Amino acid sequence: MAHDLKPGPASGDSRRDFLKVSALAGLGLAWDPRSASAPPTTTIVEATPSAIPILAPMERVRIGYVGVGGQGTTHVQNLLNIEGAEIVAVCDIVEDKVRRAQDLVEKKGFKRPIGYSRGPHDFERLCQQADIDLVYTATPWEWHVPVLLAAMNAGKHALTEVPMAVTMEECWQLLETAEKTGRLCLMMENCVYDRPEMLCLQMVRKGLFGEIQHGECGYLHDLRGIKFADEGEGLWRRAHAVRRNGNLYPTHGLGPIAQCMDINRGDRFDYLVSMSTNARGLRLYAAEHFPADHPKRKEFFALGDVNTTLIRTMKGKTITLGHNCDNPRPYSRVNLVQGTKGLFSGYPNRIHIEGRSPEGQWEPIEKYFPEFEHPLWKSEAIRNETNGHGGMDFLEDLRLVQALRAGRATDYSIYDGLAWSAISPLTELSVANRSRPVNIPDFTRGRWEVTPAL
Amino acid sequence: MAHDLKPGPASGDSRRDFLKVSALAGLGLAWDPRSASAPPTTTIVEATPSAIPILAPMERVRIGYVGVGGQGTTHVQNLLNIEGAEIVAVCDIVEDKVRRAQDLVEKKGFKRPIGYSRGPHDFERLCQQADIDLVYTATPWEWHVPVLLAAMNAGKHALTEVPMAVTMEECWQLLETAEKTGRLCLMMENCVYDRPEMLCLQMVRKGLFGEIQHGECGYLHDLRGIKFADEGEGLWRRAHAVRRNGNLYPTHGLGPIAQCMDINRGDRFDYLVSMSTNARGLRLYAAEHFPADHPKRKEFFALGDVNTTLIRTMKGKTITLGHNCDNPRPYSRVNLVQGTKGLFSGYPNRIHIEGRSPEGQWEPIEKYFPEFEHPLWKSEAIRNETNGHGGMDFLEDLRLVQALRAGRATDYSIYDGLAWSAISPLTELSVANRSRPVNIPDFTRGRWEVTPAL
Repeated sequence: MAHDLKPGPASGDSRRDFLKVSALAGLGLAWDPRSASAPPTTTIVEATPSAIPILAPMERVRIGYVGVGGQGTTHVQNLLNIEGAEIVAVCDIVEDKVRRAQDLVEKKGFKRPIGYSRGPHDFERLCQQADIDLVYTATPWEWHVPVLLAAMNAGKHALTEVPMAVTMEECWQLLETAEKTGRLCLMMENCVYDRPEMLCLQMVRKGLFGEIQHGECGYLHDLRGIKFADEGEGLWRRAHAVRRNGNLYPTHGLGPIAQCMDINRGDRFDYLVSMSTNARGLRLYAAEHFPADHPKRKEFFALGDVNTTLIRTMKGKTITLGHNCDNPRPYSRVNLVQGTKGLFSGYPNRIHIEGRSPEGQWEPIEKYFPEFEHPLWKSEAIRNETNGHGGMDFLEDLRLVQALRAGRATDYSIYDGLAWSAISPLTELSVANRSRPVNIPDFTRGRWEVTPAL
Repeated sequence: MAHDLKPGPASGDSRRDFLKVSALAGLGLAWDPRSASAPPTTTIVEATPSAIPILAPMERVRIGYVGVGGQGTTHVQNLLNIEGAEIVAVCDIVEDKVRRAQDLVEKKGFKRPIGYSRGPHDFERLCQQADIDLVYTATPWEWHVPVLLAAMNAGKHALTEVPMAVTMEECWQLLETAEKTGRLCLMMENCVYDRPEMLCLQMVRKGLFGEIQHGECGYLHDLRGIKFADEGEGLWRRAHAVRRNGNLYPTHGLGPIAQCMDINRGDRFDYLVSMSTNARGLRLYAAEHFPADHPKRKEFFALGDVNTTLIRTMKGKTITLGHNCDNPRPYSRVNLVQGTKGLFSGYPNRIHIEGRSPEGQWEPIEKYFPEFEHPLWKSEAIRNETNGHGGMDFLEDLRLVQALRAGRATDYSIYDGLAWSAISPLTELSVANRSRPVNIPDFTRGRWEVTPAL
């Protein structure tokens, strides 16, 4: 935490040196902790080991995939097209899905991965498979943490689809396990890699919007059909709406904004307030789509259709975060970043920059691509990618594998995954208490102040 | 308040009858309280007299105008074009502005109104002028309440530009004075009359969006140039940013949403939370526009550039309300209304209605004008009006004068003006207390539950 930071001597004991370097590793500045040439520092972090391990370059990244439904299969397909990645194990409770994934891998010319399908805990056996470097899961939300913990405790690196965790207790379990085991633990957030978001980040970095003051984001996606389906997410996602009221899915909107605001790298989330409407959409949908005596007509929901959350950072930035998956409306992640010199807004994408745009007028973002397109999106292959959600899904897997192979820091850390995901249970707490402010814990344990921007 | 409501007998004593009828007067259903044919009621309101007087039709509406700067002059010009309205007195601290307004009136063929220009309190003399029915003010914000109180205490009806009041104490003073004097006291909010807002309201009333769940609105208007000008609002508006931090200007965005949500007519605001960013924009503007030793460079500001407020209603609707006047950005009042069947969104204007719009797609609002244009906007004259902010400014004055001449209820009441304006000081309280929830008082004293929608 902030008050744990103390000015320290230029050289400390070995533990302090390790911590200092661990923090630096997050910057892609992975100095060798054993080297005498590590630069002097005036600030050190006390006590707990960093949860960002410094990894040696890996020639091959051997992956055990847990949960090969829709999004899991997208990742498997992406990974099969990424140099150095290998799928060596596949796990799912549905045997057919395991077989489908095995076939995909084999058809691509790789060795058939070992399959695991002996019930919901069979990922525990997968985690014991000796030749796996990394376990990657796209299971239902409530299984993310059990898989991540089993992986790390078995000495594997651990990756998950969003959200990283569902409860605060789970967040701390992940952090403590990552600290204890020294394994990489990451939430894979694809939306930070989408083209408008990366253009915006690039322009933020180059100072075009001035000092960033405020962001707006959200996940506004009519999922009623998916939630009531008899397959896929319909089998488990609706249950969260039965018992939880808050923002159940914050990371897609929040991740890109957090990166623009240097969250965990010079700033951090301080506190939030959250408010929900009544729950109407899901019961209404059931009434309109199922006969009177259907079991789905008998369900009641805690989740307010529209949840809105305000987050304030330690440095005085604010974020408005929306969630609405249960009313008819076109898709949006909002994606607005306001600075002292102008702003970026999504849905529709547009930009206004003082002195550059016509006074009081929006401009289409297309005008800014030639000068500010993010380097990763200059690739034709990325722009034309169609698997999953297009280039952004491919990029998230590509960037991960490339970082591991280069021994380089990943684009986000466990601290980001935890900070972005913890918003969910904290909104539940605020909503349940008449929108009272709720403090957001500092998972970096003070490192946010000494970790420079990406 | 809600718990003051009790089931009552079908007929009560005379005081109760008066109260019952007063509440009904708000609906445009102005039964004569002395008539025996008033319909039976099962709910009555206790204790305090209504602040919505029942007025006899007025053939002429004789107006004393206080504050004839930019917006005041717009109103004077509008009123000169409205049948039955007469400007019989004009007051301003600037003698030239009084003369300009007098000339305008005279040139239109009316008797030259009496001028008042003997210092900042000369409106008190104006309020004593015998032939005035109504005092209407467009002074700086902090003068609204002194003018309204002086008018009502002198037996005049009292109208003001937005906001109605700046502090909570002022809100209660207005309410109590209106109750005591039986005078009409209104805040004139032009944006509820704008064309997209009225289309939206019309569609809400016809049920196209289903049950209304959530609204988003705001006042996002780069006023830095105006705030730093050496004339007009530059002379006083910036001072509010020096000492106040919250949403200083809520009513333009909030009014239309509140009408869509039947606030004070079946629902009411329950509580809010509010959050501000740092204050950056105004000092930055001064640094870029004035030399180092200029007095404007020495000012510090309390007002965070971006303020965001969440409001919850008693019936479980929510509103996100923005305020940003100090950063470069295109103008917006946001203007979003989400219901269980679809939504309206402004800036750019668009609509999505389940079963009517293509799935997951927006439609331009133009598609809906032929069927749902509000009757008031079907007039060519209104659509082509160019004075002030166009048709909406003219409509607000026209509807007022027409209601007074017909002895009909106005389109909003003192309760609306107070509820919309009180948001401002309440956001300051929340911002100053780490966004803690703040209760929004019920100025209707329980009548919101028995007053049907417009």
